[in-house]
Amino acid sequence: MSSTESAILLIYCPDSPGIVAKVTDFLYQYQGNILHLDQHVDTQKNVFFMRVEWDLEHFTLEKDAIEPAFSPLADVHQMTWKLHYNTDRLRMVIFVSKQSHALYDILSRWHSGEFKVDIPLIISNHETLRPVAEQFGLPFEVVSVTKDTKAESETKQLALLEEAIPDVIVLAKYMQILTDNFVNHYPGKIINIHHSFLPAFIGAKPYHQAFERGVKIIGATSHYVTADLDAGPIIVQNVTDVSHKDSVKDMIRKGKDLEKTVLSSAIYLHLQHRILAYHNKTVVFN
Amino acid sequence: MSSTESAILLIYCPDSPGIVAKVTDFLYQYQGNILHLDQHVDTQKNVFFMRVEWDLEHFTLEKDAIEPAFSPLADVHQMTWKLHYNTDRLRMVIFVSKQSHALYDILSRWHSGEFKVDIPLIISNHETLRPVAEQFGLPFEVVSVTKDTKAESETKQLALLEEAIPDVIVLAKYMQILTDNFVNHYPGKIINIHHSFLPAFIGAKPYHQAFERGVKIIGATSHYVTADLDAGPIIVQNVTDVSHKDSVKDMIRKGKDLEKTVLSSAIYLHLQHRILAYHNKTVVFN
Amino acid sequence: MSSTESAILLIYCPDSPGIVAKVTDFLYQYQGNILHLDQHVDTQKNVFFMRVEWDLEHFTLEKDAIEPAFSPLADVHQMTWKLHYNTDRLRMVIFVSKQSHALYDILSRWHSGEFKVDIPLIISNHETLRPVAEQFGLPFEVVSVTKDTKAESETKQLALLEEAIPDVIVLAKYMQILTDNFVNHYPGKIINIHHSFLPAFIGAKPYHQAFERGVKIIGATSHYVTADLDAGPIIVQNVTDVSHKDSVKDMIRKGKDLEKTVLSSAIYLHLQHRILAYHNKTVVFN
Amino acid sequence: MSSTESAILLIYCPDSPGIVAKVTDFLYQYQGNILHLDQHVDTQKNVFFMRVEWDLEHFTLEKDAIEPAFSPLADVHQMTWKLHYNTDRLRMVIFVSKQSHALYDILSRWHSGEFKVDIPLIISNHETLRPVAEQFGLPFEVVSVTKDTKAESETKQLALLEEAIPDVIVLAKYMQILTDNFVNHYPGKIINIHHSFLPAFIGAKPYHQAFERGVKIIGATSHYVTADLDAGPIIVQNVTDVSHKDSVKDMIRKGKDLEKTVLSSAIYLHLQHRILAYHNKTVVFN
Repeated sequence: MSSTESAILLIYCPDSPGIVAKVTDFLYQYQGNILHLDQHVDTQKNVFFMRVEWDLEHFTLEKDAIEPAFSPLADVHQMTWKLHYNTDRLRMVIFVSKQSHALYDILSRWHSGEFKVDIPLIISNHETLRPVAEQFGLPFEVVSVTKDTKAESETKQLALLEEAIPDVIVLAKYMQILTDNFVNHYPGKIINIHHSFLPAFIGAKPYHQAFERGVKIIGATSHYVTADLDAGPIIVQNVTDVSHKDSVKDMIRKGKDLEKTVLSSAIYLHLQHRILAYHNKTVVFN
Repeated sequence: MSSTESAILLIYCPDSPGIVAKVTDFLYQYQGNILHLDQHVDTQKNVFFMRVEWDLEHFTLEKDAIEPAFSPLADVHQMTWKLHYNTDRLRMVIFVSKQSHALYDILSRWHSGEFKVDIPLIISNHETLRPVAEQFGLPFEVVSVTKDTKAESETKQLALLEEAIPDVIVLAKYMQILTDNFVNHYPGKIINIHHSFLPAFIGAKPYHQAFERGVKIIGATSHYVTADLDAGPIIVQNVTDVSHKDSVKDMIRKGKDLEKTVLSSAIYLHLQHRILAYHNKTVVFN
Repeated sequence: MSSTESAILLIYCPDSPGIVAKVTDFLYQYQGNILHLDQHVDTQKNVFFMRVEWDLEHFTLEKDAIEPAFSPLADVHQMTWKLHYNTDRLRMVIFVSKQSHALYDILSRWHSGEFKVDIPLIISNHETLRPVAEQFGLPFEVVSVTKDTKAESETKQLALLEEAIPDVIVLAKYMQILTDNFVNHYPGKIINIHHSFLPAFIGAKPYHQAFERGVKIIGATSHYVTADLDAGPIIVQNVTDVSHKDSVKDMIRKGKDLEKTVLSSAIYLHLQHRILAYHNKTVVFN
Repeated sequence: MSSTESAILLIYCPDSPGIVAKVTDFLYQYQGNILHLDQHVDTQKNVFFMRVEWDLEHFTLEKDAIEPAFSPLADVHQMTWKLHYNTDRLRMVIFVSKQSHALYDILSRWHSGEFKVDIPLIISNHETLRPVAEQFGLPFEVVSVTKDTKAESETKQLALLEEAIPDVIVLAKYMQILTDNFVNHYPGKIINIHHSFLPAFIGAKPYHQAFERGVKIIGATSHYVTADLDAGPIIVQNVTDVSHKDSVKDMIRKGKDLEKTVLSSAIYLHLQHRILAYHNKTVVFN
């Protein structure tokens, strides 16, 4: 990883010959030295994907001039594209409920500089984790949620988010289902951790389901949240062995380790602009 | 592992204090030296499980006398129990269809002595793998199966099995659903490999389902066959990573590696008398 | 896992027939209901190992009377043995240096109740992590260490430990080599995390060594500290994939995840009295 | 994977801006549609690596004309490069000794079409596996090897290889050390499987070493053979858990599974032209 400033371009568009040549020509024309280039073609759906990162040190275009200069090429190929800089500092809002393991894992990575991100706000439906937020000097707002007040609660949450202006929202064991309305305010920006190896054990109490079924492996899944619950694009999955010796309680304990690891991996990849989501799947360039 | 002869006792029964003491007292009374002892209590269902293996070298009971001597204790505790010897040579019948990977893996382990078992018969619904059976000098019978002739075909298969007298039947990618009638002839003796990480992607074309869903891990599951398809007691599961780069064809290739490994592991455990199945789950003492 | 009080007996001794029978008879005699029993025989060295946990609810011996009652049997078999209770609250002292990832992982598990342990003291050779200790309201003492003052520093540390009376000492990336004298004060009680897959890359800068060698997997190892550096009994190891894409910095980042997980697993097993160390190896009953 | 014919270009050279642009321009100029492109920069050593695969269906250069057309560009950038076609059928010679597990795994993959390769010869220092070769209808030559006759034996082997004209030589548990002279005849073309997680347990009897050390994970390593024994570029590694319950014999059994899997993975990658070896490391584009 370069310590100097670099730019990252994420692209997807209909596949056709010459796209890599044209994009890399564009960079070469301004003396851009490519640090990483990944591409992928979904041959079934004929979609081209690309992530290219280049050094800005000797790049002869000013940062402000890159987008206008690249736009004509993007238009020709009907690209969906986004330009990022490795020096961008994103804003991440975290939703939590009562469990602390995922939150501590995120905040300790933030504290050590592994997650180079600002955290303007932590939102919870309970007071329980306020002391953890205070440990790290972070704002903590409680918006209580009940079945009857969900709409009202989401209005409050959306108002808080409007001020916080998040680039990414992380549901760190938030345990509440968001409405389509809420999700549609932040498409492709909400990351959730599901405490099972999706699509097995969708829904509530997956560890109890896993115990009853007698599986020998349990897993966890991080995914982008879409209107269709538990069915958004999967980012990272991981698993661990279990046996007849593991009670439901043991599975929950082992599962917590998976949950925090899998969620933090997804956050890391998102912050590094390594994920392209489309058609309910992800391309993860890692 | 001892190279001398040993006996293996598998037990399950309602839990109560003193069972381990009584069983190990029984062995000690005849100078039995315990090589391995595993026990487990399902505290939810109050069931006790035990596997104990002891050296027969200085054991003062003759082999024929062990069962009668142990029976009274077993009766007191309403034990379901079975006595095996490490020198027993089990009989294993293999069902295959057209794919060779699992069969080759099994036969190469048999050839090298890892599976100390007799294989009186390989049954298939196609001629395809006859040359593989012939390579290893093993009998191969084809019983063709169509939707309309399933009952008739199973009658033929059951007749062949009656002669082969299998201790265990392995479905090595047999790809046909067995009727309840067939399954009930060999309860707890039929091992299947399912080409997915059960309970995800139950049913047909699991790799296509996995590809469509965009999962990041695929798996395979070996299980005992029961009347309820894909829902029998799970023995072994394993997984491997996949990514957007993997086509369905790649997943099938990776899946084959999982399938053969997971199936062979289940066979190994079964041959070593390490599995106790109950209530649609397994206790695997490994 | 029972929510009632249970006793845990850890034993090792020369192997001979009847040990399991005699120990379980002892428990049965006082109505002890066995919750878990694990045993192992090292047939090469003829050593017998056992861990047995039983419910104290209906046990007819008072806790104070168990040790005297068991001693005669232990003596007959020359047992090395130890009796624990699941309600014991151990005292754990943590040594750290500048890196926070392992410490945060430990303290968040302590905070959530996964580690049921008292932490009377955190010792460091630097001020860096004092704020983390303060976040959790834990005492933090700095004892600076230089090559020339190592003996003096250890004297101070030993004095602090004498007051803290630790049952277990965890080196959470302490990065200093302890003298034999120090180690001998707490035999079998010091757990270290080594940032490599021992015995590969023993010594300093293992991630740089791994990068240079071009390995495809890196690992971490937790072990008890003995006088022979990096050669104490291994408790837990784990690994993760790396590739040519991973710089040394990436390996260090991935390695930190391994380190904290592997260290916390070892602590968990130690606190549950699941580890027997002998002859530079461990028997881990998990 | 395309079912039509494709070309694969493997390149490494000193890094400089514009290489990707120039190579992809070259392909685009002749209407080449890129199927896969992977690149990597070793920023420490300033080396650029690339693998690009493109569809030949609409490519306007004849196959014979590709190399001459590309050469000038390659010369400018001092490229080490090689052009392959997915329809090339490589020739693979296998060396074995007495153990059959790796050989069976390779031959069953060859039989099922997973390895699209010709096998003109299997060479062994023992008669043991001749029946396996005969099962698959493959030529089998025995060249006995003793300490005193190693030079003479290698002369015979080299003569056999001169006729077999192998593109790749696989040591499938051959268990003999090759001389530098032999290795230098086939640089970068000899793949070995080492029965340990290199660089741990280099040398003989690694499973015995692993048992003695009490490790909790064992591994296997496939690598290209170079003059420096056990130190050639690593291609694939994998690991499996072990515990105190595993005897040396169990570790050998588990190790065999690793060995065959890891060796076959390396062969697959080599046959797909996915490996670039340099400076005793590999870049594996998978």
